[in-house]
Amino acid sequence: MRSESPSLRKLITQLQSLPGIGYKSARRLAFYIIKLPISKVEELSAALVDAKRNLKLCSICFNLSDSDPCFICNDYSRDRTILCVVEQPQDIITVERTGEFKGLYHVLQGALSPMDGIGPDNLKMKELINRLVNSFFKEIILATDPNVEGEATAIYLMKLLKPLNFKVTRIAQGLSVGSDLEYADEVSLSIAFKDRLEW
Amino acid sequence: MRSESPSLRKLITQLQSLPGIGYKSARRLAFYIIKLPISKVEELSAALVDAKRNLKLCSICFNLSDSDPCFICNDYSRDRTILCVVEQPQDIITVERTGEFKGLYHVLQGALSPMDGIGPDNLKMKELINRLVNSFFKEIILATDPNVEGEATAIYLMKLLKPLNFKVTRIAQGLSVGSDLEYADEVSLSIAFKDRLEW
Repeated sequence: MRSESPSLRKLITQLQSLPGIGYKSARRLAFYIIKLPISKVEELSAALVDAKRNLKLCSICFNLSDSDPCFICNDYSRDRTILCVVEQPQDIITVERTGEFKGLYHVLQGALSPMDGIGPDNLKMKELINRLVNSFFKEIILATDPNVEGEATAIYLMKLLKPLNFKVTRIAQGLSVGSDLEYADEVSLSIAFKDRLEW
Repeated sequence: MRSESPSLRKLITQLQSLPGIGYKSARRLAFYIIKLPISKVEELSAALVDAKRNLKLCSICFNLSDSDPCFICNDYSRDRTILCVVEQPQDIITVERTGEFKGLYHVLQGALSPMDGIGPDNLKMKELINRLVNSFFKEIILATDPNVEGEATAIYLMKLLKPLNFKVTRIAQGLSVGSDLEYADEVSLSIAFKDRLEW
């Protein structure tokens, strides 16, 4: 049944193809966009294409950046003795927002997942090793996701890096800050007990 | 703190300006978009600007449409004796999707709201009256929202249209189909009792 104009239907269909946006959200967004001034719509439209066109992988750390090397690899005020290994470029943003880390990054572009046919050769692991050889790095922080694939990837890297005489660390797992013990999942709570710190 | 490349930050900011999209959703969408093929991103980008440029108000019913008159006013297979009055163009889509109504529409472009300074002159009411004079319409269905403003608008229109000898009807209010009596709000339940039908 035809209940929308072609331009409107096309816009709703396009918005609906984005993750987490169903038909009703897409419709609401479409009507919001139609009511915006044309200049605002053009800005949004240009931002989409510009981001896609301009962003490329940094040839050193594989972060997404307008420049190569990326703005982090290019920032000589950062600590070049400590490297944080993450799965995805978006993980860098998350870590940066904590303000907790001032070293450099290496993006694996995924995690080991034999079920999906993703082995070491499909990740930027060779590039990591090449980067570490003759580098100033002293500590490698493994900040892959705290799930099955991320944990397997961290263990794999730990076995690879330990013999090269780096200090290898893994980000802490346990209970979320501000959460209730009562509602904690059993696995996190087990880890919280196992990895308890002396005060 | 600078944790994203300029193009990426711009895209996230633009997406975040849309209703119902917070920083984390915007970031997720941005990374999804960057991974799409450029042709897909260009399609999405064009759909935004095209919808804004092509959609205009129908000069008869004030629906949003690529054409004027709109595709509904132009459809001579529809029943031209029955008119459904709604607040917004998006309400037409909602009604059309029920498949329950085959007449024509009139979009008021809002509802009476003295608090927001919206009176009859700010809505397409004069246009409605002009359209009804010497028309084939027999029944006018008032399908404004079942809230305070929509109800006030319906009552206002009823008083205006009744003396012109039209059959004026209001869409039914009551309990949502598939809902539980236990969780019904009191107002809907009161109306459900008051407007009960004889079986």
